[in-house]
Amino acid sequence: MAKSSKMRSTKSGLPPGTPVHLGKQHSTHTEITWYRYNHDSLHRDTFIDQWPTGRNRDSDDLTWIHVQGVHDCGILTALGNDFDLHPLVIEDIANTHQRPKLEDYGDYLFLVVRQVVIRDGSEELFTEQFSVVVGPRFVMSFQEGRDNQLEPFQKRLDNSQSPMRSKGSDYLAYELLDFVIDQYFEILEHFDRIIDEIDDELEMSPSPLVLRKLHDLKRELILFRKSIWPLREVLNHLERSPTALILEPTRPFFRDIHDHTVTMFESLEIFRDLTGSMLELYHTTMSTKMNETMKLLTVTATVFLPLTLITGVFGMNFQHIPGIEWYWAFPMLLLTMGVMAGGMYLFFKKKGWI
Amino acid sequence: MAKSSKMRSTKSGLPPGTPVHLGKQHSTHTEITWYRYNHDSLHRDTFIDQWPTGRNRDSDDLTWIHVQGVHDCGILTALGNDFDLHPLVIEDIANTHQRPKLEDYGDYLFLVVRQVVIRDGSEELFTEQFSVVVGPRFVMSFQEGRDNQLEPFQKRLDNSQSPMRSKGSDYLAYELLDFVIDQYFEILEHFDRIIDEIDDELEMSPSPLVLRKLHDLKRELILFRKSIWPLREVLNHLERSPTALILEPTRPFFRDIHDHTVTMFESLEIFRDLTGSMLELYHTTMSTKMNETMKLLTVTATVFLPLTLITGVFGMNFQHIPGIEWYWAFPMLLLTMGVMAGGMYLFFKKKGWI
Amino acid sequence: MAKSSKMRSTKSGLPPGTPVHLGKQHSTHTEITWYRYNHDSLHRDTFIDQWPTGRNRDSDDLTWIHVQGVHDCGILTALGNDFDLHPLVIEDIANTHQRPKLEDYGDYLFLVVRQVVIRDGSEELFTEQFSVVVGPRFVMSFQEGRDNQLEPFQKRLDNSQSPMRSKGSDYLAYELLDFVIDQYFEILEHFDRIIDEIDDELEMSPSPLVLRKLHDLKRELILFRKSIWPLREVLNHLERSPTALILEPTRPFFRDIHDHTVTMFESLEIFRDLTGSMLELYHTTMSTKMNETMKLLTVTATVFLPLTLITGVFGMNFQHIPGIEWYWAFPMLLLTMGVMAGGMYLFFKKKGWI
Amino acid sequence: MAKSSKMRSTKSGLPPGTPVHLGKQHSTHTEITWYRYNHDSLHRDTFIDQWPTGRNRDSDDLTWIHVQGVHDCGILTALGNDFDLHPLVIEDIANTHQRPKLEDYGDYLFLVVRQVVIRDGSEELFTEQFSVVVGPRFVMSFQEGRDNQLEPFQKRLDNSQSPMRSKGSDYLAYELLDFVIDQYFEILEHFDRIIDEIDDELEMSPSPLVLRKLHDLKRELILFRKSIWPLREVLNHLERSPTALILEPTRPFFRDIHDHTVTMFESLEIFRDLTGSMLELYHTTMSTKMNETMKLLTVTATVFLPLTLITGVFGMNFQHIPGIEWYWAFPMLLLTMGVMAGGMYLFFKKKGWI
Amino acid sequence: MAKSSKMRSTKSGLPPGTPVHLGKQHSTHTEITWYRYNHDSLHRDTFIDQWPTGRNRDSDDLTWIHVQGVHDCGILTALGNDFDLHPLVIEDIANTHQRPKLEDYGDYLFLVVRQVVIRDGSEELFTEQFSVVVGPRFVMSFQEGRDNQLEPFQKRLDNSQSPMRSKGSDYLAYELLDFVIDQYFEILEHFDRIIDEIDDELEMSPSPLVLRKLHDLKRELILFRKSIWPLREVLNHLERSPTALILEPTRPFFRDIHDHTVTMFESLEIFRDLTGSMLELYHTTMSTKMNETMKLLTVTATVFLPLTLITGVFGMNFQHIPGIEWYWAFPMLLLTMGVMAGGMYLFFKKKGWI
Repeated sequence: MAKSSKMRSTKSGLPPGTPVHLGKQHSTHTEITWYRYNHDSLHRDTFIDQWPTGRNRDSDDLTWIHVQGVHDCGILTALGNDFDLHPLVIEDIANTHQRPKLEDYGDYLFLVVRQVVIRDGSEELFTEQFSVVVGPRFVMSFQEGRDNQLEPFQKRLDNSQSPMRSKGSDYLAYELLDFVIDQYFEILEHFDRIIDEIDDELEMSPSPLVLRKLHDLKRELILFRKSIWPLREVLNHLERSPTALILEPTRPFFRDIHDHTVTMFESLEIFRDLTGSMLELYHTTMSTKMNETMKLLTVTATVFLPLTLITGVFGMNFQHIPGIEWYWAFPMLLLTMGVMAGGMYLFFKKKGWI
Repeated sequence: MAKSSKMRSTKSGLPPGTPVHLGKQHSTHTEITWYRYNHDSLHRDTFIDQWPTGRNRDSDDLTWIHVQGVHDCGILTALGNDFDLHPLVIEDIANTHQRPKLEDYGDYLFLVVRQVVIRDGSEELFTEQFSVVVGPRFVMSFQEGRDNQLEPFQKRLDNSQSPMRSKGSDYLAYELLDFVIDQYFEILEHFDRIIDEIDDELEMSPSPLVLRKLHDLKRELILFRKSIWPLREVLNHLERSPTALILEPTRPFFRDIHDHTVTMFESLEIFRDLTGSMLELYHTTMSTKMNETMKLLTVTATVFLPLTLITGVFGMNFQHIPGIEWYWAFPMLLLTMGVMAGGMYLFFKKKGWI
Repeated sequence: MAKSSKMRSTKSGLPPGTPVHLGKQHSTHTEITWYRYNHDSLHRDTFIDQWPTGRNRDSDDLTWIHVQGVHDCGILTALGNDFDLHPLVIEDIANTHQRPKLEDYGDYLFLVVRQVVIRDGSEELFTEQFSVVVGPRFVMSFQEGRDNQLEPFQKRLDNSQSPMRSKGSDYLAYELLDFVIDQYFEILEHFDRIIDEIDDELEMSPSPLVLRKLHDLKRELILFRKSIWPLREVLNHLERSPTALILEPTRPFFRDIHDHTVTMFESLEIFRDLTGSMLELYHTTMSTKMNETMKLLTVTATVFLPLTLITGVFGMNFQHIPGIEWYWAFPMLLLTMGVMAGGMYLFFKKKGWI
Repeated sequence: MAKSSKMRSTKSGLPPGTPVHLGKQHSTHTEITWYRYNHDSLHRDTFIDQWPTGRNRDSDDLTWIHVQGVHDCGILTALGNDFDLHPLVIEDIANTHQRPKLEDYGDYLFLVVRQVVIRDGSEELFTEQFSVVVGPRFVMSFQEGRDNQLEPFQKRLDNSQSPMRSKGSDYLAYELLDFVIDQYFEILEHFDRIIDEIDDELEMSPSPLVLRKLHDLKRELILFRKSIWPLREVLNHLERSPTALILEPTRPFFRDIHDHTVTMFESLEIFRDLTGSMLELYHTTMSTKMNETMKLLTVTATVFLPLTLITGVFGMNFQHIPGIEWYWAFPMLLLTMGVMAGGMYLFFKKKGWI
Repeated sequence: MAKSSKMRSTKSGLPPGTPVHLGKQHSTHTEITWYRYNHDSLHRDTFIDQWPTGRNRDSDDLTWIHVQGVHDCGILTALGNDFDLHPLVIEDIANTHQRPKLEDYGDYLFLVVRQVVIRDGSEELFTEQFSVVVGPRFVMSFQEGRDNQLEPFQKRLDNSQSPMRSKGSDYLAYELLDFVIDQYFEILEHFDRIIDEIDDELEMSPSPLVLRKLHDLKRELILFRKSIWPLREVLNHLERSPTALILEPTRPFFRDIHDHTVTMFESLEIFRDLTGSMLELYHTTMSTKMNETMKLLTVTATVFLPLTLITGVFGMNFQHIPGIEWYWAFPMLLLTMGVMAGGMYLFFKKKGWI
């Protein structure tokens, strides 16, 4: 959860600008997929654990390089040199603890966002870094994990009717971003489902387990929020920044995903409010229940302690207890006790305690 | 409630820009009402589940097209093409999970607001999307549901004395917006009524049911707030934006509804504060009551346990208990016990516990 | 309280721009007082339920028209037409649910503030709308209620030495505003008094009544705050706006009342903080008291239950209970029980429970 | 505390611009100390309850007039006329309920700050108004109380080596401000000490007294904060405002005290956070203690009630109770009861309740 | 903790601009290390408790002067005079209660940050002031404590391949800042570890000790936050300020550490949220437990008090108690009591209390 700062200190003491892989290593290999395409043709190449430096990017066609696995700093540096990337860009790609951000290096834009996924069979959220470099005729994307989640996306690219094929690098970047952001909605639905579950449990029988669930939900909301919060600023910049890399016709598309993220943030706010409200409800329900319990206890004690005292009185072994020999004494006393109990019952009934 | 994100993910994986109806389908038909009017004349046509493309809009008269039901993407696309709308506009109209927004596409403004209604026989709030496209001589409005709530509005248009008849498309858009926003006041009164109810119940006998009511009220306030919150920004833009589509004389009217929404937001803030305050009151009342309960229990136990011990002492079967044969022993002991009980009563009375 | 939205919906469905009186009708008549004055002379006229249209305002003298009662839309419209007011201005004057605001219509300023009064014999706050129109040589003021609270103010105007007599319409407007804002300080003192009362009660004996008082105080603070909060912005505009209607020498006066309102807002913030703090104190005091109660109960039970068990043991009817015939058995047992009780007393004393 | 609005309403109804002393009268006399100095010479005069009008201020030397006691409006007006001060300035000096502010009247700056002092033998805070007028060659300072707290400051002025002697009126104003702000640090240390005390008490034995102390601390923090909060804005203006009265070389000094106040605000924020945190700790400690108490009670009742029932059973007077004549019956029963008690003891031990 | 204002008042009354060492004296000596280097050569000198004034800084080589220990105002003043520093700069270096800030004095930048360290064997945080002066060809750094934490940094400088050796004073300043900020990540990991510990304890057995730990954690988070919060503004200024002292190629590096601090702030926010959430969890767990305890008590009392009453009834010494001589009376009664107990057991079972 709060692991985001973990291992960060292993770098403390090293001179800045040294690309070091920080974070868990999610994949064993680095798989680079290289595309060069225009509206009519599309070439693809795949390289495992290597990058053949010198792949000329001076071409009118669009080049897209997708890298799975960012733990091998040598390959990243080679790629970076080929495309004249600033050393800090390579460092940020390798160090997977970045927050979403957009940096304009003049010749290219550097964009970091975070993918959020729920692993199968687990309820826990994981986040992975997704970095994109957008140049005039090339796009580079770097994914931290190894399962190629972009496969459906790549299929779309194969279709020559796809708008991606006829538009520029800015549109490709937009589609990549849209892909990542669409995944967030699954997480939102996951939260929505959990909130509904908890709300139902609260209505029926709030057990301490619900409490733990609520606590865990809160943690995950905090983590998710942290992963996507800076996106707002990033997308706002993409929509409005004066860079020539984003063409005018593409800007409405960035505005569109900007709108989506704003909707997401509002849903998150609502989830947070609801979580707080449910916690309050649990807490107050708890104290209402305790009140009920206390009332029962008090009624019990108030009814039975006096009666027990009376039996104690007549259980004493004094030799001279008036009326003890009277024939009707016992039934009369029972009757008295019954009347007392009934009176107290009515009293508590009237107070609304029973 | 938090359903706003529901089904959103069914679109995940699709290329962007594809108009897909997202959200519940509220109506079985798409009913398009077409008006062309000026101060003197008014023509009207109604089309069910179809749009006769090519209805020339090049006319000095004002054209208003009102669409009920937005699930049929084919019709929407046809309409959009006829009026040269951007594909993202059509997508946003069909996807009914938009937040209120205003987009300036140069030739026309695209405006999304949300209608909030209470269904008869239910206390639950529903929201529906209401989209408006404002062009130089035409207005298009899209309503998600099918009950034509605009009927009284349409009657007003029939009256040739109505200012709508002599003013431009911006004024018509203003009247449409005013119509939607006026409905919100009914919701506010609904909240007002519920808050009064709960406050009365709290004053009399706070039961756990009140708690649930408060929780539900909070949820609905959150939902309503989400639906109208972005309006502030939308109306602010309408009042001040440099677009030529809003004429100078119409701007004060937009400022007027801007003022109304600000009043609404303040009422909502107050409702939220009051809800919080009532929850606090409930909670503290609860713990005050528990305190009362505990005091009664404690008084009971403190009075009766010692007396019971005394009777126990003289109930023991020792053969030599001094004074046990004394004639006045029993009454004397009862007297002592009475004095003890009285003393404790006075003690607790002084402490203010009884 | 939250009545501000009440009745608002009765207007829903009506075309906008129709002046309709919304809100309670506070007066039975509309009383219009007309003044025309300069440094040397002052004319006054009073009209009940009528306005003699055509009273020429083209004069170098200053004209002040004060209207008590805003329920008669006919008279308001007549007045409005005489002075070329925008229909929305008349609508806003008649609809007494406006929030404080300042609108610059070019030829005149339109200003709405709210008077807050405590009715005699009641502790409840009422708010009434006070609207002012400031033109180059005229001022119009509209008061919702009928008791002429401006009387002392009008007397000041009779005095030809008063600065009002020699200054312009902007200064008259300033004096009217200053008059309304000075009344707020009485409300602040009212709150101050109530807070002191509650704080004293809390120190002595916090009863559940205090809780209700606190809750009511909170409601009134919320209402009052709502009535005056937008004033900040209004006065800021008056002080800085580029309008030629406010002369340079008058601006420091507006800055002065701006300062007063800022002080008021700070006092309100403090009242809110104090109310929250007192609620917290009440709550924690309550749970401290409950703790005390519980301790007494626990001590009682822990001391008497074991002793009662012992008497029970020797109260059993077994035929062979060792020592039961021993002469000193009873006193020895009492002694033992006394020692046990003393031991437990010391134990609880040491724990600080008694 | 919230007295700041007290008596303010006594002015309500008076025409604005009338200087009236509002607030407590702290001194019986008005003492005016007049200085005229340059680097080489220094003249001083003291006037009690009078101001010899006409003291020419047209001189190249610097004039400093320090006034103790602001209740005599006549003297203040005389002074004001001599130096051409705006009537609102005199009104603000006499009305000691001002919040800190800076007003630029062109020819001079008017500055209000608040002194905060702890009276000897009391733990309560008092605030007094300190007003400064800074002209091109003169400074006027007005202190509400009568104890001349500026004495050490005046001694510094006697020393001809002091930078005050060779710099202008802006530097003198800076030194006066610095003097007032340095006093705040004593208040901060006072708070710091109280917080440490309360924290220690909380660690040892949280008694209800701590609660009251915390509540009082909160009140004082609120009051102090109110007194100094607007300073931020004041100092920011002094540092950056375009006025020619503050010379360029003096501005870093104002930035320096601006930094000091920012540090102070941060300390105040921390104090507030800590107070909240301590209240929470108290509250939760309380409920932890209650839990402990309840556990003891429950253990006692659960152990002794069943045993008492058993003795009750064998204390009944039935003629045929099996085993009652058996010789070992009594010891066997005692043994059984011991085993039961031991079992329950172990059970609760395991549950961690004892 | 809140010691930051401690001793600050000892300066109150002194004229401003006097350099006085405020804060604890961390070292016994002042150790000055002087470097002059370019890409090819590096000279170093160390001075203990003295500064040989007049060390010419007019050289094309870069000069770095690192000072350990800031309690000796004489040495600091000598250094300041040598480099023409403003007296307020020297005062701020000696007074170790500064908040992080950046001041542009034209010829040089003055920068204050705070080092945060955990002392060995203690869990407490300490902060020390670290001041940097950046001139065109020189850098001066002042460290409050004496342990030379910069040693690894100095070694890096010895390496002539280090980018520091070939870049200017701005880059050296960047490396110094980066060094200080990298240390913060260790503190974040420390917090992370403590939060994990507390969360584990909460899951297992929340004891009151956890509460104290949470409280202490909150205090330390507040302190740490205070130390680093103003950094955001400082780094933002460094990245964007128009000063010529920061060269264009160095600015991305400052942006990089700006990003790091933003990440840190977000982690801190998360820590604060988590701490609040854990406190809530503790509190609610506590009240859930209390509820359990109360239920057990209530069940015990409700089962045993009535049964005890019954035995009391038949323990009374009346001479005529019907059925007392019946042979099966005792077993029948026991059976009845067993059935009653069983019934109540089932009742509570059904209510889910057992």
